[in-house]
Formats: sequence, structure tokens, C-alpha cells
Amino acid sequence: MTTPLRIAVLGASGYTGADLVRLALTHPRIEIAALSANAKAGQTMAQVWPHFAAYPSLPKLCKADEIDFTGIDVVFGCLPHAASAELLSQIEGPKIVDLSADFRLKDAATYADWYGNAHPAPQLLPEAVYGLTEFARDTLPTARIAACPGCYPTAALLALLPLVERGLISPDRITINALSGVSGAGRSVKEANLFPEVAEAVHPYGIGKHRHMPEMEQELSSRAGREVIISFTPHLVPMNRGELATIVVDLADDRTAADLRAAFDARYAGEPFVHLLPEGVAPATRMVRGSNHVVLNVFADRVPGRALVIVAIDNLVKGSSGQAIQNMNLMFGLPETMGLEAAPLFP
Amino acid sequence: MTTPLRIAVLGASGYTGADLVRLALTHPRIEIAALSANAKAGQTMAQVWPHFAAYPSLPKLCKADEIDFTGIDVVFGCLPHAASAELLSQIEGPKIVDLSADFRLKDAATYADWYGNAHPAPQLLPEAVYGLTEFARDTLPTARIAACPGCYPTAALLALLPLVERGLISPDRITINALSGVSGAGRSVKEANLFPEVAEAVHPYGIGKHRHMPEMEQELSSRAGREVIISFTPHLVPMNRGELATIVVDLADDRTAADLRAAFDARYAGEPFVHLLPEGVAPATRMVRGSNHVVLNVFADRVPGRALVIVAIDNLVKGSSGQAIQNMNLMFGLPETMGLEAAPLFP
Amino acid sequence: MTTPLRIAVLGASGYTGADLVRLALTHPRIEIAALSANAKAGQTMAQVWPHFAAYPSLPKLCKADEIDFTGIDVVFGCLPHAASAELLSQIEGPKIVDLSADFRLKDAATYADWYGNAHPAPQLLPEAVYGLTEFARDTLPTARIAACPGCYPTAALLALLPLVERGLISPDRITINALSGVSGAGRSVKEANLFPEVAEAVHPYGIGKHRHMPEMEQELSSRAGREVIISFTPHLVPMNRGELATIVVDLADDRTAADLRAAFDARYAGEPFVHLLPEGVAPATRMVRGSNHVVLNVFADRVPGRALVIVAIDNLVKGSSGQAIQNMNLMFGLPETMGLEAAPLFP
Amino acid sequence: MTTPLRIAVLGASGYTGADLVRLALTHPRIEIAALSANAKAGQTMAQVWPHFAAYPSLPKLCKADEIDFTGIDVVFGCLPHAASAELLSQIEGPKIVDLSADFRLKDAATYADWYGNAHPAPQLLPEAVYGLTEFARDTLPTARIAACPGCYPTAALLALLPLVERGLISPDRITINALSGVSGAGRSVKEANLFPEVAEAVHPYGIGKHRHMPEMEQELSSRAGREVIISFTPHLVPMNRGELATIVVDLADDRTAADLRAAFDARYAGEPFVHLLPEGVAPATRMVRGSNHVVLNVFADRVPGRALVIVAIDNLVKGSSGQAIQNMNLMFGLPETMGLEAAPLFP
Repeated sequence: MTTPLRIAVLGASGYTGADLVRLALTHPRIEIAALSANAKAGQTMAQVWPHFAAYPSLPKLCKADEIDFTGIDVVFGCLPHAASAELLSQIEGPKIVDLSADFRLKDAATYADWYGNAHPAPQLLPEAVYGLTEFARDTLPTARIAACPGCYPTAALLALLPLVERGLISPDRITINALSGVSGAGRSVKEANLFPEVAEAVHPYGIGKHRHMPEMEQELSSRAGREVIISFTPHLVPMNRGELATIVVDLADDRTAADLRAAFDARYAGEPFVHLLPEGVAPATRMVRGSNHVVLNVFADRVPGRALVIVAIDNLVKGSSGQAIQNMNLMFGLPETMGLEAAPLFP
Repeated sequence: MTTPLRIAVLGASGYTGADLVRLALTHPRIEIAALSANAKAGQTMAQVWPHFAAYPSLPKLCKADEIDFTGIDVVFGCLPHAASAELLSQIEGPKIVDLSADFRLKDAATYADWYGNAHPAPQLLPEAVYGLTEFARDTLPTARIAACPGCYPTAALLALLPLVERGLISPDRITINALSGVSGAGRSVKEANLFPEVAEAVHPYGIGKHRHMPEMEQELSSRAGREVIISFTPHLVPMNRGELATIVVDLADDRTAADLRAAFDARYAGEPFVHLLPEGVAPATRMVRGSNHVVLNVFADRVPGRALVIVAIDNLVKGSSGQAIQNMNLMFGLPETMGLEAAPLFP
Repeated sequence: MTTPLRIAVLGASGYTGADLVRLALTHPRIEIAALSANAKAGQTMAQVWPHFAAYPSLPKLCKADEIDFTGIDVVFGCLPHAASAELLSQIEGPKIVDLSADFRLKDAATYADWYGNAHPAPQLLPEAVYGLTEFARDTLPTARIAACPGCYPTAALLALLPLVERGLISPDRITINALSGVSGAGRSVKEANLFPEVAEAVHPYGIGKHRHMPEMEQELSSRAGREVIISFTPHLVPMNRGELATIVVDLADDRTAADLRAAFDARYAGEPFVHLLPEGVAPATRMVRGSNHVVLNVFADRVPGRALVIVAIDNLVKGSSGQAIQNMNLMFGLPETMGLEAAPLFP
Repeated sequence: MTTPLRIAVLGASGYTGADLVRLALTHPRIEIAALSANAKAGQTMAQVWPHFAAYPSLPKLCKADEIDFTGIDVVFGCLPHAASAELLSQIEGPKIVDLSADFRLKDAATYADWYGNAHPAPQLLPEAVYGLTEFARDTLPTARIAACPGCYPTAALLALLPLVERGLISPDRITINALSGVSGAGRSVKEANLFPEVAEAVHPYGIGKHRHMPEMEQELSSRAGREVIISFTPHLVPMNRGELATIVVDLADDRTAADLRAAFDARYAGEPFVHLLPEGVAPATRMVRGSNHVVLNVFADRVPGRALVIVAIDNLVKGSSGQAIQNMNLMFGLPETMGLEAAPLFP
């Protein structure tokens, strides 16, 4: 038997931390060595989480500074931004898979603009790989830090990068309309996220100022070779999990929706997790619930010269913890799909 | 005491028919004279509808051809398209408020294209008024037939007509992304609308071919003075009621989002049901649930030269039965808000 | 035109306070004079509540001690227990309709046992009427204080009192299994009430120690003429509103389920809000959503000598604010149904 | 590598069939050889099920009579009752795991009473094992037919059998109040299961006549050594999955709730899937969602001499397909937990 990877999860009392632990529990090579949550230190995971009621042997939650990182192979950062970089910058030795926003933006000034605080560890930014796995397979195996993309950027970039790279669409006037389940707001206790406020209702939020915007613009600009400005409007939908983006793009000259389909087909044909649906089939979040899968499709728009690209993910899995495991697998030379094989849960 | 208006509701076993009856029950001038539902004729409303359990004295459901229209003042058509026009074309005497699609499109050929059948009563089209109430106050008082707009067109047109009329936006490239509760699909029994198929999930539908498109294009073209083609993508959201449209528009030269706000302010200042929200407040379906209210707002888009207009309604009230009552009020010289004063239900 | 009743609502930032305002808005005799919410004083109702977005002319929220109670006819107490009695005990002049728990229990010691604090105003207990309206019509017209029952007691007592009074069931071994929507937990911000914690899930709570127990036991004991101990297990259900109690009772000697039906029929035949359903029809919360109606029914149990009584209400209306208005109507000699005529909202 | 078990799933277009396929996909020893669904024969699983969009290589659906059962090791019957036994009785060779009701009742006459049809294959009843796994480990390894219990009986019997066996409770007056997600109603297309009928609502159903009653009574009677009659009232809750039973029992002389706890502790201490929660912790469906786990707990009732036993399962997993796999594992000498290790999905 091979030696397990010993992992520490910082911030195991949040939804992303918990979903990481859920996946880690059945990953054949992971040993869960430490789980931190400063505000809930001393409690068991079963006390903090209903779904770990049957897992009394999970490590107790501890304070982050109580962890002995000697012998830890990889640290998963599931903390809020700023707190994450501050803590992770003090850790030497283990590889780092960060699920916060702290290592996503290459430019510390842009980070400060959008997040409202100076970057706690700008010196680490150069060594962080933007971990949109399907577009980072060259760099992840040797990376020390993987910065997992935000959930919206994961969905949107998987739908847009192949098109921008091939020049099939104009990088201008990209309009992303997105829908997310409530778990995307985290487990922080706010009136706005109470059940009666959210159930039986829908509304947009973060209009024109959502923090996932600069991340999408950074990656699109990088591929387009010039500055890209996008329109992005997320909406809160009364469901636990799931994210769907409906993207309107301007086609490059003479291009058609069929060309976009062909590009996706070529780019994603062999992918284990990214699936171009048959022509005419609309992506739906229920296609991917609880899994690391991504489904997408292309439709002609009724306005000439445009097309619709629609993509669905589970915001907590491919949009967060699943992709984190996928990145870890590559960083340690494991099969990319290891521990992520479970089929979606429906209904 | 004044003489009541005696109403007949054709199709009282569907959600729109039922919501009309709900509103009619407390309308001070309405007497519910007849309720038809061919497939459920002979049953009480309490047998067909849970929420009428406490209303045993409602008329029993009958077949439409059993109704004596003598003495009926107004007929509400809550039937599926084609069936509606076919039946209504045989009725003389009462005024007609039709909630089906049959009298919305002025052009019978367009109707045939989108609905797949020849129009059953093209001779009546000229006398039908498109009943988007706030834009039909001149014509409704003398109309014999009011064609109530679809739910999506109600929301979208209230958001777009004032802008197109004033030339503040380009009629091209209007992109409507819309979200609807499941009641919009009607009470017809389809696997796709079962609870487990819809709950905890979201997906787009009718992409590029939804039947509310020609209706929106007709009204926009009429105001713009030239043909308008729109992009419209509706999504199904796991909630009973509510509809929200997030619309991206291209501003006319030198115009800003503030100009759009000013136009809405001017146009809707005195409206009892249409409300421009304070700057920065995002419309939400929970603001209008169960009521005839409409809330809307304008936001600058991050892409230069564009703006977002966002609007929310209850699809069954302002998007259907409430607007039908509002139209009836005008057709009979009653105060426009009569019977529609109830505040939204939240949570 | 008659003089309006000027009301003050203390605690208008909670769900019960807001639902009271919703109903008051269309009550033909109510003028909303003052709305308090200490923590949100200075804000408009539209800032605090989505569904009042269209009601900018509502009074602003103020601190309770800023209200001039001169000229106020009735004060609605929608505050948490203890805070309510403390504040209300200082108010002279207006009549009081209290929706908190403070005036429900006749015995200050029992109150202290269950609520963990000494009663703030035991001197007022004798003048408070337990406002289960259908059983308090003799005393409400002259009462200065109406103590509105808890939501669970409202449902359970309407189902049990007629049976206990007539000696049709044993007062022992009453087993109440109840289900409630999440609004019953109030708008207080707790992790347990976040959407993702509650959606797609169900669980019991307050097992064996819910504070509505002593209230039910007090009223049942009073009717039974001896001490009654009940079993009561509430469950949290992922819905906004609605409450359903499934009650198992031991029949008195030779009695049958049919006898219980007959008793309900006799007791509730003329009631405007309490409805015995046709034989075999199961009560459902969707029958009463948003309304002041109550539906109930009786079924034979498979275990010999027992019966099931099932009852459904809207926890915020008949279970709280609607019953408060109903009580106010009686206290001021108005028709009991005034302002409460709206039919349930479905779907 | 070991030879896989080749399985056929009859009725793969229903929720239980689909959940079996979901689990089978990651079971290390299963090869999915054939999937039948007569009404949808010829379609791919991806056409019939959203969550198999990413699994194009699953066998196409075929008609049951097109399957060559040679070389099939085990047939899973996921068909409606009667249809299941009729078809399965014609199959020789493979072992059978039936998820329908057909082989649960030992007595064909009782079956006919409750199901309204003569049993299609009474000759097979003697060789069927009632597959409540934790109570059938002796007989499953040699059984040819495993009859998987209904979802409610699974929950209720796990909570009751250890107590009845030990004489800790009276077998009389057992009162089971149960809550179930909508998937329990199957994917059959009925108005009652449409999203708007079920969402935001709760109601009891099958009062006094639910078909899971005789099954519970059979097993309880068998353990009690005399006829047991139970009270059972299921309710429909607006969630996809999950089942919770709140059971009130009469304690045997001098017994206490603590004795029940001790009995569960003794009986289930080593169980991989059945978990007695810490004292005072209420079982919740979110503790087991998507998993084969069972959580239960005991509470003293306020009525003297009684106790509450509360138990939660996922109705489609432990209540159906998961237990079917668990049974299959035992029938083929595999580790009982194989393929069932995934942790619950929350939120």
C-alpha cells in the first residue's frame, strides 16, 4: 500500500471546507490529518456539521496555529480572503491549494481595489498557479501553490476561454448572466440568507461590482492579448447547490454557433469532467449536482451575429472543493479523477 | 348598492383561472356567475383547488357550453391558446378579457408561425386591445376585447417601452434574461414539472424559440417605428410564483443610466402598481409576491455604453390575472386598483 | 366616514410585526400611526422589508419610547417575550393586543419556569384574555389586553378544545405531532435558519421542552377540569409559512371518530374561519396559505379506540397576526372578519 | 482483477432504478449489463435522466424481454408492484434483488388485500428473504430473492425491532408519524406531485391505509410473537429526498428512555450504517442525504410511561437502492459496505 497524502483543511467550518472533507473521506490516497476552525475549535465535525454525524472519528476542529505542519503534505485553504493569505504565507513545507480569492489575481493592486485591503502576501503571487484545472495541466504538477478559481469564473471561463483563444468571438460585449444556489454565500450568518428571505424568491446581487469580475477579466485579457471588460450579473436562486451561466457573445466575422460547437468539441472531447451536450440540449444544474462535472452547450441567438453559451456546474464541487482535489491530484502525480468519480445526485 | 359585474371564468381549473377567482372573491364589484373547466365539470372548486377549501359556495365547475352568457358582463378566457379564441369567438354580448395568447399578436400569419395553428378567429384581431394596462388606458375603456400580455412581455415591456419611445436606447441588441417560477408552466401534468425534477435546480428553456418573443417584438417594433429583433432566454427557477427579467440595453448616443432612471421616474411617478426603486436597490420577486405590483431599476453596465434594466413581477398577478382585473376595471369605468390593493405576501 | 382606529406596532421588524402591517394596510378601519423597531429605528419599512418596497408612505421605524401613545387606540406587541411585557406594562390608555408569550400563561411561576425569567408584569396577568378568538368571544369585547396564543396552540387547541369540553376524548395521552414553516423561528439571525441548513431537509426540534407546551396544557386543563400533560413534537419543514398538527387522541368509552366529526360540525358550523373538511379530505397547509382560515378533519386510527385529528393553519396569520386583528375587531366592536377576507394564495 | 458482477436493472426510468444505477456506477465490482424501461426503450439514460448527461456509455434502455439473462448475475427489480413479480417469476438463473412490494409480505392474501390484485407469483414467496439488511445477515448469503423493505418500514423497523425483540416496549399503541420527500412518490406523472402543488406546503396522505402498514405489522408481529397493529401517518414534505419517523412508544413496566438508548447502543454499536446519536441530538434528514446512513435517537416523552424514538434515512438510498446494493453485497459474499461509502451531501 502506498503512503497516504496527509492533508490539513484550514476553515473546515465553512461550506467549502466541509465539502472538501466530504470528498476527502472517500479519496483513496488522502488521510485527513488536521481540521481547523478557530471559532469552533474543540468541537467535533459532527457537532458542527449534520452530515458528519456518522463520522465520529474525524479529527476534532482545532485552531490553525495548533497544527503541526511537519508531516502534512498539502494544506487546503478554505478561509475568507485576506485571512487565507496571511495564514498560508507562514506555512513552509506543504504544498498549498487555496480556495480563497487571495492568490487568483496576479496583480496585488487590482486585488486591493476589489477586496478593499492590501494583499497580505504579495511575494507569493508569482508562484501561484491559477488552478482552472483544464487550462493549467502544464503548470500544476510543479506548482507549490494552486489558486482555485471562484465558482463563477470556473463556469464562465470554461465556456469562454476556448472561444477567445481561437478568436471565434469578440472579447468585447461578453454578457454573463449567472444563477447560483445559496451555499455560494457561505455559512456566514446574515439576515439576507435566512430561509424565509431566500425561499420562493429570486433576485440579482452584486450588480456591476461582484468580486469574481476581475478574475474573469484577467484570464480573458490574458488569452485575448488585450484588456477585456465584461458584463456579469449574478442572481441568487432558492436552491442549495448549483450554478448556471447564460453567456451572450458576439461572433467573430463569419463565425456561427456551429463553429463554437466544433471548438468545444475539439477542446473538450477527451475531458473527464467537461461535457459538451448534444445539440439542442439545455444545460441544467441538476445534471451535475454533487459532482465535479461541467455541462455546456451553444445556441444561436435570435439577434444576428451572436450566440449563447450556457454552462452549469456544482458551485461547491467543480466550483470549489472538487476542483481543489482535482488540482491536488495533478500536483502529486495522481490520476486527475481520483476521488471525484461519484455520479451526480438526482433528484 | 351598485349592481355587480357578473363574470364567467373559462378555464377555472388552471393556475391563471384560479388566481383570477382568488382576486375576484374580494373584488367589491364582482359577482362570480360561472366557472368552466370541461375536464372537471361537475366538481366543486374545493375539490379541484386546495385553497378554495373554505369556499364551498363558489359555483361548481361546468362545461363552457353550459354557460348562459345572457346576463354575464364579462368573460375571462383562461384557456390554452386556440381553444380560447375558438370559444370566445362564439360569444356575443359580454366584454372579453382574454388571458391566452390568441389576441395578442395583430398579425394572424405571425400567430400561425409561432403557435403552429391557423388563428381560429382572425376577424376579431382588429378589435382586440393589447392590454398592457399602463400603455392602454386610452383604448381599454371602449374595447370589447382585452388581450392580456404574456407574463414575460408584461415585465419586459414595462421596462423597455418608456426607453424605446423616448429613443434612449437602441432597439437593437436588446438582451433579456428572465427567470420564472414554475406556476408559469401551468397546471398541465408533465414529468418536467414534477417537484423532484424542478426543486434544487435551475435551467434555461425555450432557448431562441419561446412564444413570448413575437409579442415583445411586435410592441417594441411598433414603438421603435421599425422591426426589432430581441434576444430572450427564460429560465425555470424552483419557486411557485415570481418573474424577474435582467435586461441589457445599448444606450443611445451620449445617454447614461441616469437618463434611463429619469425617464422611468417621469413615466411611472404616479403609477399605483409600477415602482422605480431607489438608486442601487435590486428588484426582487419577493417584493411583489401575490400582488399586482411591479418593481424596476436601472444600473450602469460595466461594459461602456450599456445599461441594465431589471424588473420583477408576480407572473400570476401582474403577469396574468391581476392585470386582467386591472383591465376589466378600466373597461367598466371602475377605479383601476379596485380589488388589487392587497400588499405582497412575505415571507 | 367613521373615525379610524390608530394603531401602533411594537416590533415591526419581525415577521409577525410585518405580517400585521401587511394586513393592516388593507383593513378599512385601521390607520397605521406608529411602527417601532429599536435596532432599526430611522429606517423605512421599505428598507427593512422587501414587500413594502411599494409602500413608501408607511411611517418610518422609530424607537418604542419615541411613540406618543396619546391618540393611539390599540398597541400590537410583536416583541420577544419579556421585552414585550416590560414595555407594554408602561403603556396606559390604548388597548393592547400582544403577540408575544408574555400574557398567555395565567401563572407567573409557570411562566418563569418555562421562559427562564421572572414575569416582568405579573400584575397585568389577571386582566389579559387568552385570545383564541373562537373561544374568547365573551371576554374579548371588554378586555384591555388580548394575549394572542402561540401558533402551535392555536392549531392544537382549535382541534382539541371542542372534544375535551364535550368529554369525547381522554385528556390523557394526547400526542401532538406538528410541522411548521421556517418563519415560525422569527427573523433572528441564526446559523440554523440559513437557507442551506433548512432547505431539502426536515428535523424535529424542542423535543419535550417547547415553550408552547404549558400554554396548551393550561387551556386543556382548564376545560378538562384537571391537570393535563401532553406530548408535543414540532418539526421544521422547508417552507416559509404554514403549520400542520397531526394529533392522536384516545376516544372516550364507546365514542368513535364519527362522534368527533359531529362535535366539530356542531361547534364550527357557522365559523367564518374554521372549516371542517368533507369526510376523508386531508388538511393541507396550502389550503390556508396567507389567510386566516383553519382547516381540520378527523380520521379513525388503525389502533382501536383512537382517532386522528389533523389541523392546518398559516402560522403567521391565524397563528399570529391575523388572529391579532381578529381579536382587535372584537375588542372594538367591529365585524370579526374585517380586513381578513383575502383568500389563500396558491400556488 | 476479479470478475465483475453483471447486473440488469428492470425499471431504470424510475427514481429508484436511477439511484441504483448511480450507486452501481462507482461500485468496484459491478458491471451494468442491461437497463430496461419498456416505455422508454431505445433512449439513452442521458435522454431520460439529467444526471447521466455525462455518462453516454451507459447501456441504452431496452424492453425487459429483450434482455438475455444468460450471464447476468443479479437482477434488480425496480418496477411497480405486480409488474415486478410477474416479470421476475419468469427469470431463472440470476439472483434477484426486488425493490418493489411484491416479495415483502409472506402472506399472499394480505398482499391481495392491500394491493388490490392477486399475487402474480405466490410460489416464490417462501424463498424470498425480507431484506432489512441489519436483521437478515443470516439468511441473505444463501437467498435467491431479496425483498427490499419499503422506505418507511426500513426507518420504522430499525427503530422498533430492537425494542420489541427485547420486550422493552409494548407492541400496542405504537404511533408512527412520518415525513417524506417527494421522490418517494416516484416519477409517475400526477398533478399532485407538480412542483407548485407541493412546494411551500405540507400535508398528510394515505391516512390509515398506506401500503407500508402491513409490512411493518408483519415484522413487528413476528418479533412480538403476537399480532401487532400500528398507527402510521405519513406526510409529504417539500424536499426531494429524506425520510424521518417520529415514533411514540409505550414503555414496558419500569423501563425508561435510557433503557431504550442502551438497547440501541448494544444492538447497533458496530454497525457501519446505523448510528445512535449522542444524547439529546435530534435526528435530521440532512444528516444522511444521498447516503446509506441511518441516524436515530431516543427521548423521554412528557407523557409518563412513554418514549419517543426518532429516525432519519434517505428514502432512495437506505430506503431503497442503497439497501438493495447492501443486500446484493451480502448475497455475493462481498464486503457489506462496498459501493456505499460516499458521505452524505450537505448542503
